[in-house]
Amino acid sequence: MTVKSNSSSGVVDTSSSPFAKLIALAFKEVHLKDGFWAAWRATTRREAIPYGQQKLIDSGAISNLEVAAGRRDGAFRNMRFADSDLYKWLEAASYELANSWDDELASRVTACVELAAEAQRSDGYLNTYYQLTNTQLANIEKRWTDLRHDHELYCAGHMFQAAVAHFRCTADTRFLDISKRFADHIDETFGPGKLESVPGHPEIEMALVELYRSTGEKRYLDLARFFIDYRGRGLIGGSPYHQDHCPVREAREMAGHAVRQLYLTSGMTDLYLETGESALLETLNRLWSDMTTEKMSITGGVGARHDRESFGESYELPNDRVYNETCAQIASVMWNWRMLLATGECRFADLMEWTLYNGVISGISLDGKSYFYPNPLVSRGTIERSGWFDCACCPPNVMRTLASLHNYFATKDANGLQIHLYDNCEIETSLPEGGEVRMVLETDYPWNPDVKLTVKAAAETGKKSEWTLSMRIPGWSSHPRIVVNGAEYSGELAPGSYAEIRRVWRTGDTVDLTFSMSPIFHEAHPYVEPARGCVALTRGPLVYCLEECDQESGGKVMDCGIDTDTPPQNQWREDQLGGVMTLDAKGFHESRENWQGKLYRRVEAGKAPSRTNVTLKAIPYYAWANRGKYPMSVWIPRA
Amino acid sequence: MTVKSNSSSGVVDTSSSPFAKLIALAFKEVHLKDGFWAAWRATTRREAIPYGQQKLIDSGAISNLEVAAGRRDGAFRNMRFADSDLYKWLEAASYELANSWDDELASRVTACVELAAEAQRSDGYLNTYYQLTNTQLANIEKRWTDLRHDHELYCAGHMFQAAVAHFRCTADTRFLDISKRFADHIDETFGPGKLESVPGHPEIEMALVELYRSTGEKRYLDLARFFIDYRGRGLIGGSPYHQDHCPVREAREMAGHAVRQLYLTSGMTDLYLETGESALLETLNRLWSDMTTEKMSITGGVGARHDRESFGESYELPNDRVYNETCAQIASVMWNWRMLLATGECRFADLMEWTLYNGVISGISLDGKSYFYPNPLVSRGTIERSGWFDCACCPPNVMRTLASLHNYFATKDANGLQIHLYDNCEIETSLPEGGEVRMVLETDYPWNPDVKLTVKAAAETGKKSEWTLSMRIPGWSSHPRIVVNGAEYSGELAPGSYAEIRRVWRTGDTVDLTFSMSPIFHEAHPYVEPARGCVALTRGPLVYCLEECDQESGGKVMDCGIDTDTPPQNQWREDQLGGVMTLDAKGFHESRENWQGKLYRRVEAGKAPSRTNVTLKAIPYYAWANRGKYPMSVWIPRA
Repeated sequence: MTVKSNSSSGVVDTSSSPFAKLIALAFKEVHLKDGFWAAWRATTRREAIPYGQQKLIDSGAISNLEVAAGRRDGAFRNMRFADSDLYKWLEAASYELANSWDDELASRVTACVELAAEAQRSDGYLNTYYQLTNTQLANIEKRWTDLRHDHELYCAGHMFQAAVAHFRCTADTRFLDISKRFADHIDETFGPGKLESVPGHPEIEMALVELYRSTGEKRYLDLARFFIDYRGRGLIGGSPYHQDHCPVREAREMAGHAVRQLYLTSGMTDLYLETGESALLETLNRLWSDMTTEKMSITGGVGARHDRESFGESYELPNDRVYNETCAQIASVMWNWRMLLATGECRFADLMEWTLYNGVISGISLDGKSYFYPNPLVSRGTIERSGWFDCACCPPNVMRTLASLHNYFATKDANGLQIHLYDNCEIETSLPEGGEVRMVLETDYPWNPDVKLTVKAAAETGKKSEWTLSMRIPGWSSHPRIVVNGAEYSGELAPGSYAEIRRVWRTGDTVDLTFSMSPIFHEAHPYVEPARGCVALTRGPLVYCLEECDQESGGKVMDCGIDTDTPPQNQWREDQLGGVMTLDAKGFHESRENWQGKLYRRVEAGKAPSRTNVTLKAIPYYAWANRGKYPMSVWIPRA
Repeated sequence: MTVKSNSSSGVVDTSSSPFAKLIALAFKEVHLKDGFWAAWRATTRREAIPYGQQKLIDSGAISNLEVAAGRRDGAFRNMRFADSDLYKWLEAASYELANSWDDELASRVTACVELAAEAQRSDGYLNTYYQLTNTQLANIEKRWTDLRHDHELYCAGHMFQAAVAHFRCTADTRFLDISKRFADHIDETFGPGKLESVPGHPEIEMALVELYRSTGEKRYLDLARFFIDYRGRGLIGGSPYHQDHCPVREAREMAGHAVRQLYLTSGMTDLYLETGESALLETLNRLWSDMTTEKMSITGGVGARHDRESFGESYELPNDRVYNETCAQIASVMWNWRMLLATGECRFADLMEWTLYNGVISGISLDGKSYFYPNPLVSRGTIERSGWFDCACCPPNVMRTLASLHNYFATKDANGLQIHLYDNCEIETSLPEGGEVRMVLETDYPWNPDVKLTVKAAAETGKKSEWTLSMRIPGWSSHPRIVVNGAEYSGELAPGSYAEIRRVWRTGDTVDLTFSMSPIFHEAHPYVEPARGCVALTRGPLVYCLEECDQESGGKVMDCGIDTDTPPQNQWREDQLGGVMTLDAKGFHESRENWQGKLYRRVEAGKAPSRTNVTLKAIPYYAWANRGKYPMSVWIPRA
């Protein structure tokens, strides 16, 4: 079999979306070269995806499908949404087939698709939990009867996303056909005047819009709109947990179950991209401001509460018990990517990048085989990643994100090309005004700020080939500088916006972008109580932390303080944690001897604890918990 | 009907407990007079108890018993442990009958007891959930089959506690007889070689010891020991939530569901009081140290996690999301009372008092009709007490605590009398060496520190009437002073211990106890992150807080800082919150204008926010949330 791919599509295909400001590039148009993200994708491919398949076999997700297909006997195993774990894995594997074809992986994927085809009922329905279970509450006759708690439409959404990815990456239509039959069945079942209800766990909304994009079937878009419009009418109980507490356009704040909320906002953004409904975009902007100014950890982590896996109140951002589910951070990336496509605004790319570097890859170990579900900002030495979870939503979600990550690097529009993320890569696409263009980015990002872009091929047809190259100047950066073909660029260069370089681009042209990547001490809004009097250290797009195993002479992380007047020094450590830039900061260890046996004491003047000056060693937050269970902290008290 | 009472018994009857250091006084031996606690008890009697009965009718707790008694048809309503809500209410009402007899209340209580008698099966079993439910999992044949999750033994324990209280307060044996029949049935069912398992929710352990004390039936004590000894063997799944994670004598820290943990330690202490097993006392002391030095809010609140209502890790003590279930604080009082009886050590009386004033009565509104389940240390203006709960454990637990509160005031032993709590009251008892004695305490406690004790009657038979009056010098106090009959007392006077005044006491003798009640600024261990850089204000046994409705010119509680160099001034406010001492502290409001739209920002030198000096008004923590939903905070940043 030869590889074919749908050349016009990426993860979110806005190539025909009338209200998209930016068009996502196709998978094949961005090629990662050796570098930070290529290493992560290689780990995903080499370790995580085979490991994940074995876990899906062990957990019963694949055997459920085999039983439903009539290939073997057995009972339903695992959580009722086990199908979705498999679909997310299939989505990840599909991306990897586009990244680099492999017959063995392809045959594994195909085997699953064939299983799904056999398991699908003649009416198009496919959900192994309802097909295999036969209790009073759950059996095939009871399908679609408990939309609040069950995950049939959620699993369907993950099927559609996987099928769309499979189609776009392989041009094979079999999985897409299965999805269309299921979507048709859902469309026959749900809608105004039919079954008027919505899923307790959003996901299908964005999936249906993508299915519409890949099939052209407008009914799927209408169905997505139906599921969005009918939410908040109390049809599934009215709780924030199930995202049913208010009509979506009236929402004033991010609330309830974080992944549900963010999958919903992602679906709403997909709907906006097709319909251009201003009320939707206004709501989305309002919710984004609420999230980013009151409900987000400095890592980009969202969904602060363990309790119901939900957003907390404004400024409710603990260090120890912050939930920050890996899936919520992934959902935030998905939403920010869609907002970026909808608006072209740099702030969405900024947060997408920040969340990828800090909130997403913290969820997976460096070896690709263990995972965090919550991502706390402090550890007292009791926390480690797990090999898998009973509720295994996060691991395959990380896999599909990393396998498709290059897709978020660049976009195009009528004026030219936009570069959002930086790493060693080659971008090759066709621009409306510029024709075929190919360029190479060379950088040591995220460790060093210099990015060199070289145009390798450009259609030089005079006026027509003048186009705009937009390069993102990260919001966290300072002192940006661009040199084009050796000459200082004199256009506007503001952190948090795109430098727009318009010219006739020729083969051999070069752009050198740089900016300051000096370590920065951040403070949190005073309402964030556990960060009061503390700073967090960042450098470039990376949040840093102190892990106890790195500290001098057994110094305890919880006894450290930091001197913010002395700039930390960065040092490349090739041998540590897969190669990381560490930061050495001036600080101290504070004695706790006066606290022996006390939890509270009266304040007494002149009782300053004794301090020992030390050099604090900070590592990127994403890399913690890879060497054992050590105390760790992101927020460090200031001297 | 005339009131009879078992004159030798209080809430915990250690009059015959061989390993009790102290003997609890009987109900009738302490009479509260007008004062702080008398007001709370009056509210309980006048408002909470009738209100509670109506809620028990509304919630189905009483009708469940009526259906089980065959008086009416109907299905089981409410939580599966609804019986226990009624039993706790009956316990509270029984105490109130001893406090002040009332025919109407007595007939309501008797009606419930008669209902229970009719509902009880011939074999002694009584649990309306299992008697009324008829599903595959729960029906009368399935009783005792799901000890991990069900609450049959928990409900039985609450029945026994209520029945013992009813017997001790009224001398009526009917409820006690019902309990004995049920306890006999449980004893026939459980034990080595019989059904070897333990309840998922401890409670019956202490109840069985009390039933033993009131009946003399040693089998009940043995059964309590069985339920304690067989815990931690994995018989009910092995989780900390169900207190099954380790054998009780091996426990190193307070863990799992807080109320379960504290009911268990209470039962263990009751067992120790009867058996004197040193391994139990060592464990209890170890656990008490763990709780008080690493896992307790400054209010005495315990059980920090919403998630599974459990103890958190060491120093995991958030302000906003701390759980501090009202029932857990009540359980802490129950445990500390038993530890005090077991050891006579002041630290247990200190914590009992502190928890009563701050952790328990914060759980009930001033009008007695609304309740907190969790008791947070900060509110962003979204929190208010509820009229009742689906899971209504807390309200009747508060009622039984307040109705029996005077019982914790004093104890006796071979040497004399010990006074633990201070309020206006009369104490009348018979001392081994001193014969009949009657004394009056007059004080304005907790608002002012002076306590005047006057001996109203003392048997004056020469040498034999020399006995020791022990008066608690609270651990939080300073500069204690005692004057006996106008002469300075020269014995040892140390905060956190008892002043032991031994003499021949005569009618008309007076003791004047005083100490400093100056406001104190407390700081928390630096590992308690949300309190870093903050202080909490206390005065006497009361923790204070800032509630936004009290602050000058609309100052926001979250924008306040406090000057710890200037002593706060106290001011009596007769008209506020039922009469409270407020504290005026020097402080400031800090401008947040530079934070507009920002959650994190880079630290920049010289960016001190502008401050406005103000007088901060603090009220006792227990009194907050009685005037509407206002922001509140216990921990205030220091200047």
